[in-house]
Amino acid sequence: MSIVEFEPIGHVESPYERPADVPRPAHDQVEASGSVVLDPAYEDGLLGLDEFSHIVLVSHLHRTGAVRLRVQPKGEGPEYGIFATSGTVRPNPIGLSVVELDHIDGTRVSVTHLDLIDGTPILDIKPFAPKIQDFSDLDIGWMGEEAD
Amino acid sequence: MSIVEFEPIGHVESPYERPADVPRPAHDQVEASGSVVLDPAYEDGLLGLDEFSHIVLVSHLHRTGAVRLRVQPKGEGPEYGIFATSGTVRPNPIGLSVVELDHIDGTRVSVTHLDLIDGTPILDIKPFAPKIQDFSDLDIGWMGEEAD
Repeated sequence: MSIVEFEPIGHVESPYERPADVPRPAHDQVEASGSVVLDPAYEDGLLGLDEFSHIVLVSHLHRTGAVRLRVQPKGEGPEYGIFATSGTVRPNPIGLSVVELDHIDGTRVSVTHLDLIDGTPILDIKPFAPKIQDFSDLDIGWMGEEAD
Repeated sequence: MSIVEFEPIGHVESPYERPADVPRPAHDQVEASGSVVLDPAYEDGLLGLDEFSHIVLVSHLHRTGAVRLRVQPKGEGPEYGIFATSGTVRPNPIGLSVVELDHIDGTRVSVTHLDLIDGTPILDIKPFAPKIQDFSDLDIGWMGEEAD
């Protein structure tokens, strides 16, 4: 299928320098704060985003390793397909990060719960507004078992 | 910033032929069922995905119009920045669709609540397992006002 090309709209400023620096809590969010700095040309695109408490960062995980289709998400135990995990060694290393929006100053978007490394290219920003808000029937597979 | 290239991992089979065919309910999910058909090379990547009730499709919205940084998401009334909406005329037309997983047969993934048109390239599949499950403090801006 045809190659798809995207030009990043901005990049991340984060306290984490390398992928190994990012904590991977199973069920909690990371505590780190940082910023997404967009190209000034996109300032109009942020109008009204500050009404939202949480946003989704769509990123290019630019420093991942070689693609692996099967991984051990807990580092041991059963293997899972990469699409059944949030692992980074995916065929297309696209990251989705739900972060808390602190404030916006020009094209600098300050956020908390940032799990990306410094310099990560940002491809898109969207409001976090899931249409599913009743999670009583949600099944999260092996990720739920981790809670035991 | 450097251009990022992705090769789609598969494509959508949907009853919707054109973007205008997709219903845009403000708060409900669309009813349509369809499939994501991955390249056979990625079958191992789906191992264990069937444990999840919902998945996220990361897609290339390949038939959107020209980019607009300000839009009227309700078709009238105040303008919002494109990043404060789920509109398709984004600088990088990447779609995120949370769909219900029905079943997997080889590399055919059957889903419900599919809001993508037939032929949409799929870039990634991830489990839907939000770490935020208490939405009492979630503010969804103008999208919440639509409920009135």
